[in-house]
Amino acid sequence: VAEKQYLITPGPTPVPPEVAAAIAQPVVHHRSPDFKALLSDVLAGLQRVFATQNPVLLMTASGTAAMESAVVNLLGRGERAVVASAGNFGERWAAIAEAHEVEVVHLRGEWGERLDPDTIATAVGGCGARVVFVTHSETSTGVVNDVQAIAAALRPAGAMLVVDAVSSLGGIPLMTDLWGVDVVVAGSQKALMTPPGLAFASISERARAAAAGGGQGRFYLDWEAGLRAQEKGQTAFTPAVGLVQGLAAALELIERRGIDRIWAHNRRLAQAAREGVRALGLELFSPDDDSSAMVTAVRMPDGLDGQEVYARLRDRYHVVLAGGQGPLRGQIMRIGHMGDMDEFAIVTALAGLGLALHELGYGGASPGAGAARAVEVFASAEAP
Amino acid sequence: VAEKQYLITPGPTPVPPEVAAAIAQPVVHHRSPDFKALLSDVLAGLQRVFATQNPVLLMTASGTAAMESAVVNLLGRGERAVVASAGNFGERWAAIAEAHEVEVVHLRGEWGERLDPDTIATAVGGCGARVVFVTHSETSTGVVNDVQAIAAALRPAGAMLVVDAVSSLGGIPLMTDLWGVDVVVAGSQKALMTPPGLAFASISERARAAAAGGGQGRFYLDWEAGLRAQEKGQTAFTPAVGLVQGLAAALELIERRGIDRIWAHNRRLAQAAREGVRALGLELFSPDDDSSAMVTAVRMPDGLDGQEVYARLRDRYHVVLAGGQGPLRGQIMRIGHMGDMDEFAIVTALAGLGLALHELGYGGASPGAGAARAVEVFASAEAP
Repeated sequence: VAEKQYLITPGPTPVPPEVAAAIAQPVVHHRSPDFKALLSDVLAGLQRVFATQNPVLLMTASGTAAMESAVVNLLGRGERAVVASAGNFGERWAAIAEAHEVEVVHLRGEWGERLDPDTIATAVGGCGARVVFVTHSETSTGVVNDVQAIAAALRPAGAMLVVDAVSSLGGIPLMTDLWGVDVVVAGSQKALMTPPGLAFASISERARAAAAGGGQGRFYLDWEAGLRAQEKGQTAFTPAVGLVQGLAAALELIERRGIDRIWAHNRRLAQAAREGVRALGLELFSPDDDSSAMVTAVRMPDGLDGQEVYARLRDRYHVVLAGGQGPLRGQIMRIGHMGDMDEFAIVTALAGLGLALHELGYGGASPGAGAARAVEVFASAEAP
Repeated sequence: VAEKQYLITPGPTPVPPEVAAAIAQPVVHHRSPDFKALLSDVLAGLQRVFATQNPVLLMTASGTAAMESAVVNLLGRGERAVVASAGNFGERWAAIAEAHEVEVVHLRGEWGERLDPDTIATAVGGCGARVVFVTHSETSTGVVNDVQAIAAALRPAGAMLVVDAVSSLGGIPLMTDLWGVDVVVAGSQKALMTPPGLAFASISERARAAAAGGGQGRFYLDWEAGLRAQEKGQTAFTPAVGLVQGLAAALELIERRGIDRIWAHNRRLAQAAREGVRALGLELFSPDDDSSAMVTAVRMPDGLDGQEVYARLRDRYHVVLAGGQGPLRGQIMRIGHMGDMDEFAIVTALAGLGLALHELGYGGASPGAGAARAVEVFASAEAP
């Protein structure tokens, strides 16, 4: 009769108790010195996680708004941009840009494929676009794109690279300055272990300069107004102060754990999840490599509706995984590895999946085979 | 040595413990049936507070973004709109509209004055604008504008009325449907007693129709996409689920207390604050009437810098009031009455103000005169 819920999705992720407690603290006035000190700590902590010396703009919004901020600050109507996509969140870049009358050169790959840096560079050379939009971790498929290689391929042409890292930042390596990424957008609710409601954009000098002299009509999402307010220790508009308090606690946890150890931890969880999935006799949809460590996407067996598996897991076992999006709806199941996730979350996800599949008539393997295999993987290598 | 903080500003307002506890609950996945039920409750509760049958769109953002949503959904570039303002937040309507290349006919009143309905109607008749933007409670001055009269004056011309009720909704009467207001925008952090981070817009049928066929480029703030998602029990983008949980608790408190009683309570607090201010020998900046019950603005005595009084109150007594904005900076002090504020908050604000003024050399009255007078006002009439 217990109803404890296990949220093992690629976001929102479970919030650690320290973060929940920080959020429940009394509201601090956003124009007070207390908030100024808090904001300054948080922005410095974000710069470390973004691996950048560039300012990181904090917005009270979903990650999509941070994506939109890049479009409206960098591109005027009728200006040309390249979007390279192979999944639901890559499609969103194109939809946002088109909503703002940007002329989009859209390089669409198959869902589940990795973006090809040379193809992007060639397209940019061919059309003369000044801005390129890509997704780092394509949460809809589990694929992590090679942002470092894409940035390197774009360097000769001088186009600006904007990366959606909403579901990757803090969970896998993303070296903004070292790789030369102009704009990285992210959200609070994935590897940053804070509830949804805050979004971020790190903004390079040349991106800021381009925005100051260009883009199109915007107010709430205007970078210059936001950055100037932050330079005075404020936000341009009333921020979600409680979530900022929570984020401060989360960033402290990340620093204490160490970002390198977190990356290694997530890789380990991904590896165990994937071996467990195979032990259940299932096929992986996402690539099984070290870099794609944010989410594992699993093909559902022929004749079984993924949405039914999802509902059974949720309603009977209170284990919440993520189903497929768009054309993959019903086809796959996704297990998240980022944020405050540990070995037992992976074991639970695999145990739940084994139980639900078994109840729905799947006979490809014993229901406990996935959980058992994950435990063996964890036993075979020390935790980072 | 105690450091308990007293937040007696016109927002953000203190969060009741029930709301803080709700926010600290584990994160619910925003595509789950649990969230669907929560969202449906919250949207129904908001409709009751908005006094409307129109849908209320929930956005994860500051109130400013909800204001901007009205501009970009209703007005194309080059289209004409009337903004009537007499304070900082009225100015914001004009700034947002101008950022989006709307042709603004700006009726600017003196800060501290009330908007004149006939002047607005005449201007609309003269310029043929389809949309009018006004502020309900102008937090920067304490003035509450007569939205009912403005709506009535606009009716013959058929222009749509958009009202910024960020700092008034739930605290003073605002009968959206009865008065015929097309769009009301509001935020979570004032009378709704929830931390900042959620914003709302109630949208009339004709406003929705106008938006569907017009406006300009938008994505995150697109009304139609948001309303369609809500009709399916979802939000278009990952919402601040924790704040939605908190808002549900706050709406429950409001229903339990009764909205009429809350309005009467706020009027009573305003009355006591104003009599207390006069007993301190100070002048009111905001009008002393029953409708302007959200905030009391007080002129600082000649020769005293309001910012110094503000800092003294905050640093020595941990009482946070609000100073003046824009041209009123240093000239006034503002005491909030909305949200989870009670008699003792007003006594505390007046006691703190008396102490701080006394320490800064003010000799116009005994430092306890304001608190004493407020207590007498409370004694003279029963609580609603």
